[in-house]
Amino acid sequence: MKKHNYSAGPSILPQEVFEKASQAVLNFNNSGLSILEISHRSKDFVAVMDEARSLALELLGLEGKGYQALFLQGGASTAFLMAPYNLMKENGKAAYLDSGTWATAAIKEAKLFGETVVVASSKEENYNHIPKGYTIPSDADYFHCTSNNTIFGTQIKDFPATNVPVVCDMSSDIFSRQLDFSKFDLIYAGAQKNMGPAGTTLVVVKEEILEKNGRTIPSMLDYAKHIKAESMYNTPSVFAVYVSLLTLQWIKAKGGVEAVEKLNDAKAALLYAEIDRNPLFKGAAVVEDRSKMNVTFLLNNPDHAAAFDALWKEAGISGLPGHRSVGGYRASIYNAMPIESVQVLVDVMKALESKV
Amino acid sequence: MKKHNYSAGPSILPQEVFEKASQAVLNFNNSGLSILEISHRSKDFVAVMDEARSLALELLGLEGKGYQALFLQGGASTAFLMAPYNLMKENGKAAYLDSGTWATAAIKEAKLFGETVVVASSKEENYNHIPKGYTIPSDADYFHCTSNNTIFGTQIKDFPATNVPVVCDMSSDIFSRQLDFSKFDLIYAGAQKNMGPAGTTLVVVKEEILEKNGRTIPSMLDYAKHIKAESMYNTPSVFAVYVSLLTLQWIKAKGGVEAVEKLNDAKAALLYAEIDRNPLFKGAAVVEDRSKMNVTFLLNNPDHAAAFDALWKEAGISGLPGHRSVGGYRASIYNAMPIESVQVLVDVMKALESKV
Repeated sequence: MKKHNYSAGPSILPQEVFEKASQAVLNFNNSGLSILEISHRSKDFVAVMDEARSLALELLGLEGKGYQALFLQGGASTAFLMAPYNLMKENGKAAYLDSGTWATAAIKEAKLFGETVVVASSKEENYNHIPKGYTIPSDADYFHCTSNNTIFGTQIKDFPATNVPVVCDMSSDIFSRQLDFSKFDLIYAGAQKNMGPAGTTLVVVKEEILEKNGRTIPSMLDYAKHIKAESMYNTPSVFAVYVSLLTLQWIKAKGGVEAVEKLNDAKAALLYAEIDRNPLFKGAAVVEDRSKMNVTFLLNNPDHAAAFDALWKEAGISGLPGHRSVGGYRASIYNAMPIESVQVLVDVMKALESKV
Repeated sequence: MKKHNYSAGPSILPQEVFEKASQAVLNFNNSGLSILEISHRSKDFVAVMDEARSLALELLGLEGKGYQALFLQGGASTAFLMAPYNLMKENGKAAYLDSGTWATAAIKEAKLFGETVVVASSKEENYNHIPKGYTIPSDADYFHCTSNNTIFGTQIKDFPATNVPVVCDMSSDIFSRQLDFSKFDLIYAGAQKNMGPAGTTLVVVKEEILEKNGRTIPSMLDYAKHIKAESMYNTPSVFAVYVSLLTLQWIKAKGGVEAVEKLNDAKAALLYAEIDRNPLFKGAAVVEDRSKMNVTFLLNNPDHAAAFDALWKEAGISGLPGHRSVGGYRASIYNAMPIESVQVLVDVMKALESKV
């Protein structure tokens, strides 16, 4: 039986993507070869990479606006150090918003490169909200934020206006909602939430901000080198890029980010409504900053945990336990999660209510 | 029809690996979940990573000898910069053997970190042989070499004796032959030749050489941090690690590296014998340094190219054209290549002889 997979990442992808990917492992494009054994320089794979790069820009509304999309390796964790390497001047400084665990990890790497100003932090409240009302120094080389905090279940709704380049880690909500993406200068996202399997990282960068900070950058960490090589500076993560393309094609076929966002809104509304209605549960994050991707919630009475856990496991749900930093539960309802699966969870929450 | 895949990388893997991998994309370990959607922290995947790490050491005869195996992202190209970052002292120096394109790329990155002595080079002869008779400075922080040169078809048979740590890029011949691997201190290999699909890199490192060079290393570039995190410092390339494990299991089931080497010897002997016998062909590399993984050869008369190309394509062979730096042909006969496929190529070479 197929599970209702609420895993925070790697996470659910569309069933048709799994089926096409499985077939390509045996015989890709009817070539008589597995996708795992073809040269990344083959015509067939170059076409995959080119389409994935252009479709990523198209879905974000960034075509023809001076941006390049790359599919690199190393995850967002490698982007944490590539951002300052590529953008922070020697003796320059960067501004960071500390909204959670991954923001903190990004800040740690930036500090190795120079002055790193934390403009605001919600750490004291265990990151249950997005800090607001801060000032970004106008002489910063860039401002860095995390659009969605997977662990804490918070999401930035309004991005700050600033005159400095904006860098954003969108690992857990890329392609899930419409934004004016042209307000960002560098976006990166590990594929393994809304876009594909672990093993590739989407980087979307405004070309004009690169090659200006005067640092000597090792080749594999240099965004400009990857752009020149059309995202093939070295052997890319072929299969992960292919599965990402399949997922991007699925988003486009659904009607693009606009259509997917409507479904995401409906799923989040359904689940938060139950959390707010059901006297047994409470949300973990401040209401106005609630994430539409990672819904964190707690039992008011921890004694109900055993009964609740038995119920959702029985219903074929997996991946629901919360991160240890928050406790309770976390329902990750990424793009590929059907609303029917969310209804299963809501029904389980109701069943608990009538049981206890 | 399944092709005879001579691609230099990504390259052929065992058919049973493709079949198991394809199945796991639909339903991994009968869990009701795809391998692409499971958490890397799940019990099932932690078991995969643990077994892959210990099996890699076992197959190399390095268990219990102070080594750790890691499956990282970024390919050998990222290892090119991680080697100096982790091993070269500030104001230290490293010694490199320049035996081909990838060695040159490694040297380029090392130079960003400090004095980089090239102890010998075969560049003047278009890398048609492995340089010998050089001296490794006894005060170098390490000596770096490339065990097999994929592009030029040469392979180191005797590694130099030295008192300094030895770093070796074994991307294209790892697990293909027996060596005393305990003579190496750091081995790295992109998976996509003998070990798995593109997207993960095996690193085998003697723990005692790390954390001694005094540099501040960004987290994702720090081998010691990856060891402490048991190769899960960030989300690993889950699927690529799983397929690598399947391939390592296949090697073990075959009888380990010793048994695989015998098959590789037989395949290489069969093909080189035909190259030397057939008056239409000649080998590209000096005989004593010929690679048993990448067999480079040329037509004596380029006018025969059209006829030869038609013949091998007709026979279901793919991936045979040589790299532009050498021209001619390159037959990559990695572990998973059956001797029957090599015989098909030999038969085609004979057919050309009787035709022209």
